[in-house]
Amino acid sequence: MNERLARFLPCLEWARHYDREAAGKDALAALIVTLMLIPQSLAYAMLAGLPPVNGLYASILPLVAYALFGTSRTLAVGPVAVVSLMTAAALGPLFATGSAEYAGATLLLALLSGVLLLAMALLRLGFLANFLSHPVISGFISASGLLIALGQLKHILGIRIEGETAPQLLHGLYGGLPATHLPTLAIGGVSVVFLFLVRSRLSGWLQAAGFTPRLAGHLAKTGPVVALLASVLVVSLFDLASAGVRVVGAVPTGLPAFNLPPLDLALARQLLPAALLISLVGFVESVSVAQTLAAQRRQRIEPNQELVALGSANVAAALSGGFPVTGGFARSVVNFDAGAQTPLAGALTAVGIAVTVLFFTPLFHNLPQAVLAATIIVAVLSLVDLGALRRTWRYSRQDAAAMAATMLGVLLIGVEAGILLGVGLSLLLFLWRTSKPHIAVVGQLPGSEHFRNVERFAVVESPRVLSVRVDESLYFPNARYLEDRIAALVARHPQVEHLVLMCPGVNLIDASALESLKAISVRLHAAGIQLHLSEVKGPVMDRLKQSDFLDHFGGRVFISQFEALAELDPQTTLQAIALRRNGLHAIPTPRQESDSEKRP
Amino acid sequence: MNERLARFLPCLEWARHYDREAAGKDALAALIVTLMLIPQSLAYAMLAGLPPVNGLYASILPLVAYALFGTSRTLAVGPVAVVSLMTAAALGPLFATGSAEYAGATLLLALLSGVLLLAMALLRLGFLANFLSHPVISGFISASGLLIALGQLKHILGIRIEGETAPQLLHGLYGGLPATHLPTLAIGGVSVVFLFLVRSRLSGWLQAAGFTPRLAGHLAKTGPVVALLASVLVVSLFDLASAGVRVVGAVPTGLPAFNLPPLDLALARQLLPAALLISLVGFVESVSVAQTLAAQRRQRIEPNQELVALGSANVAAALSGGFPVTGGFARSVVNFDAGAQTPLAGALTAVGIAVTVLFFTPLFHNLPQAVLAATIIVAVLSLVDLGALRRTWRYSRQDAAAMAATMLGVLLIGVEAGILLGVGLSLLLFLWRTSKPHIAVVGQLPGSEHFRNVERFAVVESPRVLSVRVDESLYFPNARYLEDRIAALVARHPQVEHLVLMCPGVNLIDASALESLKAISVRLHAAGIQLHLSEVKGPVMDRLKQSDFLDHFGGRVFISQFEALAELDPQTTLQAIALRRNGLHAIPTPRQESDSEKRP
Repeated sequence: MNERLARFLPCLEWARHYDREAAGKDALAALIVTLMLIPQSLAYAMLAGLPPVNGLYASILPLVAYALFGTSRTLAVGPVAVVSLMTAAALGPLFATGSAEYAGATLLLALLSGVLLLAMALLRLGFLANFLSHPVISGFISASGLLIALGQLKHILGIRIEGETAPQLLHGLYGGLPATHLPTLAIGGVSVVFLFLVRSRLSGWLQAAGFTPRLAGHLAKTGPVVALLASVLVVSLFDLASAGVRVVGAVPTGLPAFNLPPLDLALARQLLPAALLISLVGFVESVSVAQTLAAQRRQRIEPNQELVALGSANVAAALSGGFPVTGGFARSVVNFDAGAQTPLAGALTAVGIAVTVLFFTPLFHNLPQAVLAATIIVAVLSLVDLGALRRTWRYSRQDAAAMAATMLGVLLIGVEAGILLGVGLSLLLFLWRTSKPHIAVVGQLPGSEHFRNVERFAVVESPRVLSVRVDESLYFPNARYLEDRIAALVARHPQVEHLVLMCPGVNLIDASALESLKAISVRLHAAGIQLHLSEVKGPVMDRLKQSDFLDHFGGRVFISQFEALAELDPQTTLQAIALRRNGLHAIPTPRQESDSEKRP
Repeated sequence: MNERLARFLPCLEWARHYDREAAGKDALAALIVTLMLIPQSLAYAMLAGLPPVNGLYASILPLVAYALFGTSRTLAVGPVAVVSLMTAAALGPLFATGSAEYAGATLLLALLSGVLLLAMALLRLGFLANFLSHPVISGFISASGLLIALGQLKHILGIRIEGETAPQLLHGLYGGLPATHLPTLAIGGVSVVFLFLVRSRLSGWLQAAGFTPRLAGHLAKTGPVVALLASVLVVSLFDLASAGVRVVGAVPTGLPAFNLPPLDLALARQLLPAALLISLVGFVESVSVAQTLAAQRRQRIEPNQELVALGSANVAAALSGGFPVTGGFARSVVNFDAGAQTPLAGALTAVGIAVTVLFFTPLFHNLPQAVLAATIIVAVLSLVDLGALRRTWRYSRQDAAAMAATMLGVLLIGVEAGILLGVGLSLLLFLWRTSKPHIAVVGQLPGSEHFRNVERFAVVESPRVLSVRVDESLYFPNARYLEDRIAALVARHPQVEHLVLMCPGVNLIDASALESLKAISVRLHAAGIQLHLSEVKGPVMDRLKQSDFLDHFGGRVFISQFEALAELDPQTTLQAIALRRNGLHAIPTPRQESDSEKRP
């Protein structure tokens, strides 16, 4: 088999060994995930501002695409809460919810996300996801969860309110409380309590009642579908829709039509930033779930191929009436626990949803929106982890600041603003952290050829030669700091004639740092001081040889600091080495290494 | 004297030792700089889209402010070409050039720049300038120089064209050629040639004619003022203004009124990004000039205090009818060469410009715009250094890409877009570079306690323990890569029971990397492998102790990799140490160190 093809189509690999046992396990897992996915996909479509049926559409073709291209055996792809919220946040300000333009724009957004993911795969740009540091993602998910839950409360109360941000929603809810529709509140409240109990307790109760833990677990997953069916029954029996309980209404039957999204270039450009954020957030979340599950069976995830798979899933969503999708956390864990062996479980789930769309949509006519809202609330509140902020704070104030900024941004301004704020702050703090590397003046340890920080050791300093050690690569975030520090050091040592920059910790000198070195050399020259380098690593030296720095700077590159000093100030150096070794410092001890560790 | 006050007001320091000799030198330097500054300030005001007199205003109070707060003895502050272009680019799309709104917005822009610089000083945010890597700044200046020169050609040709980008300007010039106004072209062309010759040759000719090099240099600096006076004379004599040569026209006489800029919050918010870029570019350029000059006399620049000084200068510009200013390169070098001893030279220059505004503005009525354009063109073309692109390319393709992106952005889209493109690409490439640290599987060097890269040395590997060394700090740009690599390594070594992460090169573990370590530990656990750490540096260990990682990960932290192996797989380890040392590898040789140098 062609190896490149196998890497591009991982399904070729597992399909070769597929057998009846795997098929049975996959089918069971698919059944359970289907029952879990039906209410979720209806609910997340509503969250994304779309008719519920689009959620079902988004759970058919995309799952098949992932089954073909994905490297995770157990990841369950489909609509997820956070991405649905991001979709609504991107399109809400542009089009009226429920309009044809809104639905068209959703398809375009899914297409853009898909194309961006595929482009990232092609150009090997998966590292872009590194921009989303863990505190930012974690804060983003928690705050999004809170925002989603707040936004769904209106469905539980049966009121209409406007608002995107947490303060707006709170204000709207407070103002709308008197208008609460009690039958809706009853249904919604009971659903929330029921779903919470199902999630947290049902499995235990069923085990106590004699079910095996495995079966009890599987049964508990069907809780939401039970709530859905029960509520449809109640609403139909008592004709609650006429009493003002808002229901889903007519849901079209039949598979989605195969359609191209509207190819509006101006709109595409407008949606591009949102599509990029959706792609990156979806990718990061999905890969992290997939890796956790794969590790438990010692399987492998190929991140670049995951870009292909998620990209294809989103393109498939765009072509079949869906909206942006990615790998879902809870759903994948259920799939894994239910024993899914291969991505075929995902494809079978797609069949389950297709059957639903073909035959069971009339069932959903009397489904109360409050029940869907309850499904969402119970699902997203499990994503909220406010303790993470405290834990991160204890570990690193800077990371906690980035997390808090993300959360506040999401709650007070909006999801995109929040994530951009967090990413921006992470980068700023990162640059700040790397902008001041540890730079030490070093001197010769008496009786040895070693050089150590003058502030920590009793060393011999040459009056004519200033030895400076840099404990970091030199690149643009710290290039100017080096200039400043050297200028300050030289001003404090007016009598020196040579400055030797000791570079054992320098793994890279970029063009900015090269210009800084040139500037330093020229400025030192003007002040009557010659710059030299020592202990330059091989690859760094190779690079320097390609520039004209070595030709012009006038100094020398010494193999070791000792050689430099022996050459530039032999008298002091030889005296120092002839000194009786000081017992405390004769042999390098662990403490002596610590001067390179002073950085925060 | 209060030390903090002395740091805040560096003038208190030099004023104490001021004497007659310094005063004489300062006065001479001020005279030469004034003669150089008059045509420049008129011209840069025109470039910024303002009446020429505003250039003179911008050269009075800001210079006094810098003299009070600046730490450079010789920096000459005032309007400069690049910042003037940025001003025009920021305001051109918003207001009609020449309107009162435009002038008001310029003041607001100067105020914002000044306040931002002061805020950066207060919050110690000078490191923000590190975002502007050298290739970006260099590309930005070169491309801006080209764009400015192109934009001024219309004044030389005496035609009117619209356009902001290089293609628009070229197209306009091509279309406008037939409308060239010949008298204007004659004046402009002669001026350009004259100024070029003055700049490049005059000093040499004067020396050949018997002048001392010093005097010849000083005289050559007055070339632009001579061109200015000569052109006024010619225009007046032949009444060329009536013949269609565009002149400056009536210039108001008298010092600028002390005015507050319009405090329009919405406009301020709109101008904020431009103000930030202007502040940063101005700061970077100014500090770099100041440091180069200071070094020649072994003086010191205090970058944070420079933020205060440039901030005050811009606030002063905003209050006295000016526009954004910063330290100018050519002007500062002239000031230095002319022997300026203290910032008082700058204050005396301000007096010179004030005298000009009070008494000589009627002179400028008949000054042709073509001569001002010629002044600008000759000045900015000296900033253009296209060879830098080639030199940078030879040294680093990535840095060259950032430079090229900046240049193309400036020429094809605009100055702000160009600089943002360059900064964005620099950050991307930086993250990309740091996102894949060197990670090596290591084994025990036979007959020793040392561990080396298995790909480079004949080492002994334990079948039960996988030893992995990371040669970089662990933070968000590389946290996920670590997860991927460890997952891949474990998949390739299915029989191992322990994985020891050797951390001698890890100076930092941020919150993202901590989460990655937790995820790695959990995933390894699920696969039946225990994670351990070794050779963790002190500060990193202190941090880890503040998290709950060490309580939960279940492994141990070993002092050395040897201790880890001796504990986890004593048999293999003791056998390896008992092996006869292989002659080639018995003593660490330089080549052995090179495995930590493999990164690009």
